[in-house]
Amino acid sequence: MNDFVRIVEVGPRDGLQNEARPIATADKIALIDRLSATGLRSIEATSFVSPRWVPQLADAAEVYAGIAKAPGVAYPVLVPNEQGYERARQVGAQEVAVFTAASEAFNRRNTNAGIDESIERFRPVLARARQDGVRVRGYVSTVLGCPYQGEVPLADVVRVARRLHELGCYEISLGDTIGVGTPRRARAMLHAVAAEIPLDALAVHFHDTYGQALANIAACLDEGVRVVDAAVSGTGGCPYAKGASGNVASEDVVYMLHGMGMSTGVDLQALAATGRWLAALLGRETGSKAGKALASASA
Amino acid sequence: MNDFVRIVEVGPRDGLQNEARPIATADKIALIDRLSATGLRSIEATSFVSPRWVPQLADAAEVYAGIAKAPGVAYPVLVPNEQGYERARQVGAQEVAVFTAASEAFNRRNTNAGIDESIERFRPVLARARQDGVRVRGYVSTVLGCPYQGEVPLADVVRVARRLHELGCYEISLGDTIGVGTPRRARAMLHAVAAEIPLDALAVHFHDTYGQALANIAACLDEGVRVVDAAVSGTGGCPYAKGASGNVASEDVVYMLHGMGMSTGVDLQALAATGRWLAALLGRETGSKAGKALASASA
Repeated sequence: MNDFVRIVEVGPRDGLQNEARPIATADKIALIDRLSATGLRSIEATSFVSPRWVPQLADAAEVYAGIAKAPGVAYPVLVPNEQGYERARQVGAQEVAVFTAASEAFNRRNTNAGIDESIERFRPVLARARQDGVRVRGYVSTVLGCPYQGEVPLADVVRVARRLHELGCYEISLGDTIGVGTPRRARAMLHAVAAEIPLDALAVHFHDTYGQALANIAACLDEGVRVVDAAVSGTGGCPYAKGASGNVASEDVVYMLHGMGMSTGVDLQALAATGRWLAALLGRETGSKAGKALASASA
Repeated sequence: MNDFVRIVEVGPRDGLQNEARPIATADKIALIDRLSATGLRSIEATSFVSPRWVPQLADAAEVYAGIAKAPGVAYPVLVPNEQGYERARQVGAQEVAVFTAASEAFNRRNTNAGIDESIERFRPVLARARQDGVRVRGYVSTVLGCPYQGEVPLADVVRVARRLHELGCYEISLGDTIGVGTPRRARAMLHAVAAEIPLDALAVHFHDTYGQALANIAACLDEGVRVVDAAVSGTGGCPYAKGASGNVASEDVVYMLHGMGMSTGVDLQALAATGRWLAALLGRETGSKAGKALASASA
């Protein structure tokens, strides 16, 4: 079994987009540059979604233009449609990410479009990306539950994931957006999707709303997944549960993987230091338990 | 496979003993009485270790005498030796717990005795308990690492656990005292012990210092364990990593178990409410992520 796990660091995008307090463009750039120095291979840098929806990331173009692109590191950016793709390409993005939900209700509330309609919006993005040699990652959200419709049938998750893969996404990230999943269900979900899409084209994306993210990731690693999304310092929160925890903390994921004898290429101490730096910037304690424990050990 | 998991709630003892700020006896009693109403079957009530070592629990006799003993609920208390056993029995304790480390270095630092010597101290406790019809639980600490000696050989964990079991402990709780374990190692440790002691006489006890506790518990559930120690609100901290997280939060464990289709007999909403009540008493946010998310959902 391949024991290298690629961490897709989503803190600068999925983490920061849920932060209420404005963060300076220079600080976002500094965060990404610090992350680039930790050995991470994929850092989702920002989002070209309309600033009306995500005001925190209104400076997407400046952030992307300002970061030092380290050799061998991918800096995907989120794009909602063709206009977003154009803005991303204007500053030179080489990889983009598109997104839809597995829950019809969630998709309608979040994008004013049904799932099929939002997938149609990606068709021109994927066509242009193919011409431009730009890689496209696909997110499927609400794979283990939806704040509006509750249960999300596995068949819907599989259908949406397969559709994005057929359209040309090289990797599909399966997201438990509201963090309600538990290990057996997470594993069963991944297993069902992997019956239709090669496992090496799948990633998992867990939020730690109910504290379950790391247990879910461990179950999915057992199932064979080798790409894990995470956010340094566990930033993000949850728009559907005020005060709840955000993305799983990258530091805790890396600690677990290294303890399991798997490799990530990431310098855990440097990552944890970056997490504490970010937490200080946001005016709170790091959301990473490993980050706290390592600070004490190094003090 | 048996899908009932017994939670041993250790918050009133293992959680509170590490709290620096004094907690009123009446509050400790109120905590245990609230926990008794949640459906928990085992609540470790206090410790009869010398108040010189654990000043927070100097009121052990008053706490034990003051709690309402709910039918069908066990209230074990920690005892370090025969004198502790006597004090516990004077207030009517029906179940006690003894403890030693799997690490020789840890045991010497914590109890001024080698492992074999501390096990000898338990011999009269176990003999008297047998005569008195008192059940004895045994803790083995530092099963996945030690702050003084680092690695703890699996053979030492197995030897100490077997010794406590042979001496008459009905259940052995295997503790990752400093929270350094990860799922594969946790599972391998349990597997090694289960080769010598029946699985139904084993419990797992994880601290969440590095955020790994729930993932470790999930791995041990896969291995067949059905007794899990946890502390409401994740109290406890870590004396070896200042500022780090404490015991795994009972709420997060129960959330996971129920999500996995397992039963605990515990009312999660009531448990989470008790966790938030305790956190408010201690002047901070609950350490349970499920506790936070459920508060938001019910608000």
